[in-house]
Amino acid sequence: MNFYTLKWQDGTVLMMDQRKLPTQEIYNTYTRIEEVAEAIKTMVVRGAPAIGVAGAFGMALAAQNSQAGSLETFRQEMDQAADLLISQRPTAVNLPWAVRRVQNLLNQNNSLEVLKENILSEALNIFEEDVAMCEAMGKHGAQLIEEGKTYLTHCNAGALATAGQGTALSVFYEAAKEGKKFSVIASETRPFLQGARLTAWELEKNGIDVTLITDNMVAHLMKLGKIHGVVTGSDRIAANGDVANKIGTYGAALLAKAHKIPFYVVAPYSTVDFETPNGEAIPIEERPREEVIQFFGTASAPESIRVLNPAFDVTPAELIKAIVTERGIVHAPYKINLAQQLK
Amino acid sequence: MNFYTLKWQDGTVLMMDQRKLPTQEIYNTYTRIEEVAEAIKTMVVRGAPAIGVAGAFGMALAAQNSQAGSLETFRQEMDQAADLLISQRPTAVNLPWAVRRVQNLLNQNNSLEVLKENILSEALNIFEEDVAMCEAMGKHGAQLIEEGKTYLTHCNAGALATAGQGTALSVFYEAAKEGKKFSVIASETRPFLQGARLTAWELEKNGIDVTLITDNMVAHLMKLGKIHGVVTGSDRIAANGDVANKIGTYGAALLAKAHKIPFYVVAPYSTVDFETPNGEAIPIEERPREEVIQFFGTASAPESIRVLNPAFDVTPAELIKAIVTERGIVHAPYKINLAQQLK
Repeated sequence: MNFYTLKWQDGTVLMMDQRKLPTQEIYNTYTRIEEVAEAIKTMVVRGAPAIGVAGAFGMALAAQNSQAGSLETFRQEMDQAADLLISQRPTAVNLPWAVRRVQNLLNQNNSLEVLKENILSEALNIFEEDVAMCEAMGKHGAQLIEEGKTYLTHCNAGALATAGQGTALSVFYEAAKEGKKFSVIASETRPFLQGARLTAWELEKNGIDVTLITDNMVAHLMKLGKIHGVVTGSDRIAANGDVANKIGTYGAALLAKAHKIPFYVVAPYSTVDFETPNGEAIPIEERPREEVIQFFGTASAPESIRVLNPAFDVTPAELIKAIVTERGIVHAPYKINLAQQLK
Repeated sequence: MNFYTLKWQDGTVLMMDQRKLPTQEIYNTYTRIEEVAEAIKTMVVRGAPAIGVAGAFGMALAAQNSQAGSLETFRQEMDQAADLLISQRPTAVNLPWAVRRVQNLLNQNNSLEVLKENILSEALNIFEEDVAMCEAMGKHGAQLIEEGKTYLTHCNAGALATAGQGTALSVFYEAAKEGKKFSVIASETRPFLQGARLTAWELEKNGIDVTLITDNMVAHLMKLGKIHGVVTGSDRIAANGDVANKIGTYGAALLAKAHKIPFYVVAPYSTVDFETPNGEAIPIEERPREEVIQFFGTASAPESIRVLNPAFDVTPAELIKAIVTERGIVHAPYKINLAQQLK
């Protein structure tokens, strides 16, 4: 990667301001937890894994800056810090997961000094683990990439969504490292344009052959034989292998099936939610109407028009050729084989 | 219709400036052919049938304003006028068709006065015929609309694309006149947003229950049972019933098939091109990259990114439940039944 999404450096948190992409590559420096919380809220950083790491770094900043004279005061401050961070994006599961993991250290019977050290070290662990998971997913998934073929990806499951080199896009980065020649088509991903603004940007910047299209060109290009596979990330995978991901994914999977093209999902194993039996049990977030009727502040539709804006859809397991996690490649039947990977 | 796309009034041409939609409804008055030519070129008016009528009105303005003292000079002026108009949009078939139809009157052995009268009258005929065709298509198609159902439409095959009440959208207007209760979902139609800017605007303005979505939400809504049929226009229909229409149409047709939802095409009979045996013979226009990477002048993707921008796709006849023209409803086998309508 010739950029980074976020990192810890000399007692500060550095984050790329993704709101400025694709026209500007700007890194902000944060020294206080309140600033990190604001950055999470205002989408300076986005993507579930990246938000988790940002939350852990926020906790590390709070610990480092604490003036608490007693363990009790310190624990109170850190609990407040955790609440502040978690409340910024109530739906992302990685944020509370990472923050709670750091917060759990407060139960240790250690001196204030040691606790502070352990908190920073745990935050850095979360960062490093994310980097390693991304690489492992990429290496497993790279086996699926064939020489000379073109792969569609949707939304941004890339380095910009993680501390490492991404989930779905990590597959492309690893395949390229292995010397494979292939191309990527990025669908722009309306309404928020993560494909156009983020995926196109990061793939091009890292030397991957990438072409941008609008979401409604997928079927036409498949019919022309210009797409040979689809690789996407996931926000939640049900126990039976049904996959929730950015709106448009299910349509791409159906179109892939109609053209006999393989459809792959790449996500950390933590995305598999064994509490959710199938896709119907996954709640679909409805996003603000402004995303659909405005474009960078300019009205693109009548102000009064009724709008639907579901942020995700569910792709049934039977449309998925393989699910790739950091633990390996899983095929159907997913209910059995995903659980198998737990062991 | 509680607006108009274009009309002839007191020796002038009035046209809605569609570039200002959906935020402003502005009508421009044109008194000279050069102004009409410019309006066609700069997309004040768009939609193949509407452009044809605009061309005919342009010829009428040129005739009316002519200072020619002899028939020969007048014919030369009118030939120049025809060339000017036709050159503004080289691909739209209705523009040369309408302009040539007016131009053909110059072969008549009439006085200058009578010729001028006949030219205006032919331009008005072309206008009236378009209005009547739209209404006929709508009445035939309205039979397909079922009470309480919701229909997806793509792009703008509406009043804004014709002199009358549109092609696909005319079906909705006629069904509503008949007292049927139903809803419409308009897909925004990237990259040019005809669905968001034009279809959503004109349906809402005329009291049709309409909801706007992004193109990639279609499959999700079909799975939820929220779309019961698809109704689109067409730019060209091959002799075998394959249909070229705005990019995204083929994908919507495949998704409709996967969800067992009927897919209908509505277009004037002149859209059927018996010279084109099938969809593979239809050339697909590639549009400028700026449409995909910019939004109202703001960059939405990296400036240097490679882009594909096919303006149309082809829906194979086997995905189409019925084709509606002003002559009636045609079912498969289209090769036989479309030719049958000729008689």
